[in-house]
Amino acid sequence: MTKKIILRDDEMPTQWYNVVPDIPGGLKPPLDPETKQPMSAEKLSAVFPMGLLEQEMSSERFITIPEEVQEIYKIWRPSPLVRATSLEKALGTKAKIYFKNEGVSPVGSHKANTAVPQAYYNMKEGVKRIATETGAGQWGSALSFATSKFGLECKVYMVRVSYDQKPYRKSMMHTFGAEVVASPSMETKIGRQILAEYPDTPGSLGIAISEALEDAFSRDDTKYSLGSVLNHVILHQSIIGLEAKKQMEIAGDYPDVIIGCCGGGSNIAGLVNPFIPDYLNGKKIRFVGVEPASCPSLTMGKLAYDFGDVAQSTPLLYMYTLGHDFIPPGIHAGGLRYHGMSPIVSALVRENIMEAVKVHQIECFEAGVLFAKTEGIIPAPETCHAIRATIIEATKDLNDPKTILFNFSGHGLIDMGSYDKYFSGDLQNYDYPAEQIAKSMANLPKI
Amino acid sequence: MTKKIILRDDEMPTQWYNVVPDIPGGLKPPLDPETKQPMSAEKLSAVFPMGLLEQEMSSERFITIPEEVQEIYKIWRPSPLVRATSLEKALGTKAKIYFKNEGVSPVGSHKANTAVPQAYYNMKEGVKRIATETGAGQWGSALSFATSKFGLECKVYMVRVSYDQKPYRKSMMHTFGAEVVASPSMETKIGRQILAEYPDTPGSLGIAISEALEDAFSRDDTKYSLGSVLNHVILHQSIIGLEAKKQMEIAGDYPDVIIGCCGGGSNIAGLVNPFIPDYLNGKKIRFVGVEPASCPSLTMGKLAYDFGDVAQSTPLLYMYTLGHDFIPPGIHAGGLRYHGMSPIVSALVRENIMEAVKVHQIECFEAGVLFAKTEGIIPAPETCHAIRATIIEATKDLNDPKTILFNFSGHGLIDMGSYDKYFSGDLQNYDYPAEQIAKSMANLPKI
Repeated sequence: MTKKIILRDDEMPTQWYNVVPDIPGGLKPPLDPETKQPMSAEKLSAVFPMGLLEQEMSSERFITIPEEVQEIYKIWRPSPLVRATSLEKALGTKAKIYFKNEGVSPVGSHKANTAVPQAYYNMKEGVKRIATETGAGQWGSALSFATSKFGLECKVYMVRVSYDQKPYRKSMMHTFGAEVVASPSMETKIGRQILAEYPDTPGSLGIAISEALEDAFSRDDTKYSLGSVLNHVILHQSIIGLEAKKQMEIAGDYPDVIIGCCGGGSNIAGLVNPFIPDYLNGKKIRFVGVEPASCPSLTMGKLAYDFGDVAQSTPLLYMYTLGHDFIPPGIHAGGLRYHGMSPIVSALVRENIMEAVKVHQIECFEAGVLFAKTEGIIPAPETCHAIRATIIEATKDLNDPKTILFNFSGHGLIDMGSYDKYFSGDLQNYDYPAEQIAKSMANLPKI
Repeated sequence: MTKKIILRDDEMPTQWYNVVPDIPGGLKPPLDPETKQPMSAEKLSAVFPMGLLEQEMSSERFITIPEEVQEIYKIWRPSPLVRATSLEKALGTKAKIYFKNEGVSPVGSHKANTAVPQAYYNMKEGVKRIATETGAGQWGSALSFATSKFGLECKVYMVRVSYDQKPYRKSMMHTFGAEVVASPSMETKIGRQILAEYPDTPGSLGIAISEALEDAFSRDDTKYSLGSVLNHVILHQSIIGLEAKKQMEIAGDYPDVIIGCCGGGSNIAGLVNPFIPDYLNGKKIRFVGVEPASCPSLTMGKLAYDFGDVAQSTPLLYMYTLGHDFIPPGIHAGGLRYHGMSPIVSALVRENIMEAVKVHQIECFEAGVLFAKTEGIIPAPETCHAIRATIIEATKDLNDPKTILFNFSGHGLIDMGSYDKYFSGDLQNYDYPAEQIAKSMANLPKI
């Protein structure tokens, strides 16, 4: 039996798919944080290279992947599509479970898919240095890898809770030549302010973004880079779904439901978006975004204009948000600890194209251990969320022979400390209290 | 351009290649540690299942891979053959460098290739529990993965220096359901003896083997498993070279030199052996085994019958050895810290078919960092030895357009602590003193 469907280098897609022109009702534009008017490309070009800004605002359905980017993709792409036969058997389900294994990238996650083009377009426009933030460390290591390929410097503001829990992530970034500092740090104004007020803060992606942006604004040689949320990031991730479509076709199958974990939204959108045109053409297919109960932007947040960061320095994005000053608890799926959600994923949820569910971390680790023991691969804590939702879906009715496809966004080999905590019984489930969320949402900007 | 050559699931070899009948002069048999006569299969069957013993003693050239093993192999196999174009460019060499990426296995190294059939044959014969040792932790995690697939219990004696330096390896083994203890431990007689004499010992593979063997001998439900050295292990690893031959053919190329790091010998033999028949038929091809200067069994040891362990409980193997009571210093390439060398690799070196070189660890980490920055993948410390030798080979004469193939035996993502030590400047090069080696070799058994 064929366990996995692989594609050769020359079968790799050569264009990304941009879902924006296909979203019913479209996207609302980002707003200038000062004027509250639609953001000008000129202003954004202070922190992003034009190559990426053009993609951010593009209404083209397909955008060619530069050859230099394709060459680097081929280090690990096309990634395998795997049939989780052993997991199916352990669950006793008639459902067919497939996963797209993005853990095969050199940094162990899907983040490399956008890190490479982002470093590329910066290099093309003469940028010497990129500043960024990282949650779980996956994005920071991906960008460090990508910048090392193009000879750029890289500075990473890493959310403190991850900085402390994931020493190997720092080591990876060092190996690729990047500089890493725990966020909030003493190196930026906003970092110093927050440390003065909350010296013991675990940090958050919202804070780290503020620091990286301040860094980029303050230096002529530096631009900023974001690993999720934005349209151009989601564009780059579409290669996941484009490959998966080809592979499902080779497998002679088609998904009834597609599942992915949701932090900023890039991994689920990357897998889902290339299937959206089929959905709009009447194909029966469900899309399920899975978020942690401790940071439930899609399921308990509000669709509104909000800042992407704590310092209110980003453009206002129209998205599901828990409020920009929401600081999520230090759960271990650091990559899912973000107050907002990509405008594209938010629009898909708004249009009832995508469903959203929330799950608890202990059940996610249980699912991850079952996956490791059956399929042999240890998933990242973030990915465990998608696996948990997949198991729920596959066991609702054990006799339903539906086809499930989920995004295996990354392996967990660099995050084993989280598994140690799970095995020791130190982990707790956490529902973020509604009244706390109401409080942070009261600070949404008035538009 | 094609960066990597991949094979589909249905192109995976379905037989292993056994080099033993092709070794000029053959192999000397293992001897009974008590009688010093050739070891009987009956006695060995106390610790190994018959399925593996038959392979250990087989003179068949090809042995069919059981279907259940093939199915599990397909989780990650066939593994990619990659052209290291960026490394070539950075070196300014006209040499073509290929590597076989065994880091794609669920546990990050080639060790899974033998762990799976070993667990399989034990399961087939009704064994309930396997005891083993592990150096760097790669073998222990591979066997934990494999036993979890067949529902066996697994007990791992992990060399103390690695146990302390590599916490994530322990976590991996726990995730797969194995039990892990630092060796020497208080759980065996030999462990207690050694701890009484050397309470601060970093441990060694030789000691850990003694503990695992004692465990297996003392329990009816338990057999023993070794991750390198033995003929059946090397047989299983031949899938690396069998795939690589097919892939080089697809690439339209053939190696002038094949390189691998040497601990017990299984990864280099796995890649090299399937090319041996070509060599014996007159093909011009060099094979280079790379060992650490701190544990130089091939370059400074002696070809003799010796024990595989400190407690003198294994059969006597005819191999290059530094003496069974040699305790190598705690260098970071834990997987290369073994006093002996596989009898097969020893015979290839004896027959001048394979060359052996020794390298220093600081230069190896330098090579590993260059590889990470060029090819994007962070190598395991052991693998850095092969890369170091590859770089030496590729830069001897920059204009020589030779084709080099090396075994990328594993990635380093679970061993980043070693890179931290390298970056901090704490690492030192170490040549094991000749007079010390002479001392431990004075204790070789008299045959």
